[in-house]
Amino acid sequence: MTAPMRLLEIEIPAEWVDYNDHLNDAYHALAFSRAGDAFMERLGLGEAGRKASGRTVYTLGLIIRYLAEAKLGERIAVSLQVLEIDKKRVRFWLEARRVADDTLISTSEQVLICVDRTGERPRAADFPAEVAAKLEAVAADHAELAMPLEAGQGLTLRRRSASSVTP
Amino acid sequence: MTAPMRLLEIEIPAEWVDYNDHLNDAYHALAFSRAGDAFMERLGLGEAGRKASGRTVYTLGLIIRYLAEAKLGERIAVSLQVLEIDKKRVRFWLEARRVADDTLISTSEQVLICVDRTGERPRAADFPAEVAAKLEAVAADHAELAMPLEAGQGLTLRRRSASSVTP
Repeated sequence: MTAPMRLLEIEIPAEWVDYNDHLNDAYHALAFSRAGDAFMERLGLGEAGRKASGRTVYTLGLIIRYLAEAKLGERIAVSLQVLEIDKKRVRFWLEARRVADDTLISTSEQVLICVDRTGERPRAADFPAEVAAKLEAVAADHAELAMPLEAGQGLTLRRRSASSVTP
Repeated sequence: MTAPMRLLEIEIPAEWVDYNDHLNDAYHALAFSRAGDAFMERLGLGEAGRKASGRTVYTLGLIIRYLAEAKLGERIAVSLQVLEIDKKRVRFWLEARRVADDTLISTSEQVLICVDRTGERPRAADFPAEVAAKLEAVAADHAELAMPLEAGQGLTLRRRSASSVTP
């Protein structure tokens, strides 16, 4: 059975919690960012792969939707589903769930681009061949998964995407 | 002349910089989160206002678009434009610019909701009357500003919103 790729588990530390006594919005972003790093590691664009190829990834855009509160000391697990790829870019969907009861805490949709950093200025570049092959395999596998309902949507006060996430 | 509200300036510290030698994606989110806090302070929902009213704000969703790199030690300024409000929620647009040359580094669109934390569980609530009055005044002022081109859009590999932010 095809399933999203489980990438990491994090225990929420005190410095990630804000005046609302919950995981701060920006630290959801940090957990998702670390999951993205773990995904790149699996594709061969971790530290060694970046050094060998001179390529890395930059984030072009992301959306985070906050669905439930996460508290100090709770463990959250982040999983990833590839939505779309081309030669230079990948769009994926992340979900953070509370490990104890599998509650969905937040989702993130992200677009990353491969960048060549060996020149004078960083510039968009194709993924290295071995990375592209691995990415295509994951994308083909994940093509069997249902597209998340809110993927591709923006934020407004009027549409589903905002009103459905009232805590 | 109506202008977006300038909320804060931050100098990028070493711990916000990642293996790409630039401001990490999640720390753009942290800069924007602090700008949101500064906006709430101005509306009367800072620490004292939260204590007096028992109300606070939670972030329901956010989008960040990354447009240029920011480096260690650079100063960035964050400004805010209110896009839309109702009794419980506000949608606003943030821009982070490099102070030295006014380069637009990143933008963020966010939806926040007012929450009453005095009950057993946090629940959505109207903004306190004085906060709502201030928010309406800012929204009326900002209604004169042009709507940002990408406001309300989502992320894909195919549409303007993603392709226009290639570094």
